Amino acid sequence: MIRTLRFTVRTRGRTDIVDITSQVASAVRGSGVATVFVSGSTAGLTTIENEPGLLEDLREAFERIAPSSRRYHHAETAGDDNGVAHVRAAMLGPSLTVPFADGRLLLGTWQQIVLVDFDTRPRTREITVQLVGE
Amino acid sequence: MIRTLRFTVRTRGRTDIVDITSQVASAVRGSGVATVFVSGSTAGLTTIENEPGLLEDLREAFERIAPSSRRYHHAETAGDDNGVAHVRAAMLGPSLTVPFADGRLLLGTWQQIVLVDFDTRPRTREITVQLVGE
Amino acid sequence: MIRTLRFTVRTRGRTDIVDITSQVASAVRGSGVATVFVSGSTAGLTTIENEPGLLEDLREAFERIAPSSRRYHHAETAGDDNGVAHVRAAMLGPSLTVPFADGRLLLGTWQQIVLVDFDTRPRTREITVQLVGE
Repeated sequence: MIRTLRFTVRTRGRTDIVDITSQVASAVRGSGVATVFVSGSTAGLTTIENEPGLLEDLREAFERIAPSSRRYHHAETAGDDNGVAHVRAAMLGPSLTVPFADGRLLLGTWQQIVLVDFDTRPRTREITVQLVGE
Repeated sequence: MIRTLRFTVRTRGRTDIVDITSQVASAVRGSGVATVFVSGSTAGLTTIENEPGLLEDLREAFERIAPSSRRYHHAETAGDDNGVAHVRAAMLGPSLTVPFADGRLLLGTWQQIVLVDFDTRPRTREITVQLVGE
Repeated sequence: MIRTLRFTVRTRGRTDIVDITSQVASAVRGSGVATVFVSGSTAGLTTIENEPGLLEDLREAFERIAPSSRRYHHAETAGDDNGVAHVRAAMLGPSLTVPFADGRLLLGTWQQIVLVDFDTRPRTREITVQLVGE
């Protein structure tokens, strides 16, 4: 059994972190694996406890890896101001796979699925959830 | 064909790195994809050569990304001392997918599947292996 | 329906970034999920816009996380000069899952699948694409 769900999420960009757990959870039936994927090269997916202080901590870690203030080659070669967003997104990755059983995602108690939008402007993002199960 | 295996791993926390390759390998039959997932927001999964010096090198890289000595907002907003663990886990990610063929994981010779437990105390971790194959 | 495709990619090493989108795309029929995996502990997979300036930006970010100039414990414990490559690969991860529909990968317009080879010498890499679909 394979099912595909697609939905959109509006973000504010600039490492905006949006909890999409409920959208993924509501698609799940029986047992199997959910592949979650964000189309686009300036956003990524991961899991984290959705707690405001922690989301700020994660943003600060991305500042250390790929600072906003830095000049990126992408600005010169492509004329775009979002080199920082591309680098952070490539580091985080666009895909996540989460198993489920008895119609429930096997997440920990404090573990939420989040979209992280690194782009330098608000965006509407396409999320695909592909369910392989029985 | 979908099969699910769950097992627990005891860790010492503080970026303890535990090789779980044999547990995953022993579940595999025929050909397909193994999704490995750790429930919890302060641990992650990856592959690495399981060599003590290298594991120390990986720990030091995580110190650069998210230093242990830093004050995290999570301590103020949630009263927890493990902000460092959440940030590192969100960076690494909780899921890994490894194809297999003829009953064998398609890992490289020096490539082991490891659980990295970033929490600030020893933990018992739930690992799920979901096999889709034939 | 499960199908497996394997191909090799020659790289120059030293964080060489090679676009493998067309190889993955050409294997896809109908709808499902493609798991892409690189065998070996000194390379990884992600998605990025394949633009030379940006690839240089990504290499510079890896220099911050795991500098080339650093002395790695791996050199002392294993006698290998590629500790930097192992650490970067463990951070990036060896697997990627990309959904497809109507025979087309659901990538964004500027989102390419890339192999990043961190090893300190040229390598020939084995890539596995496992397709679960209908």
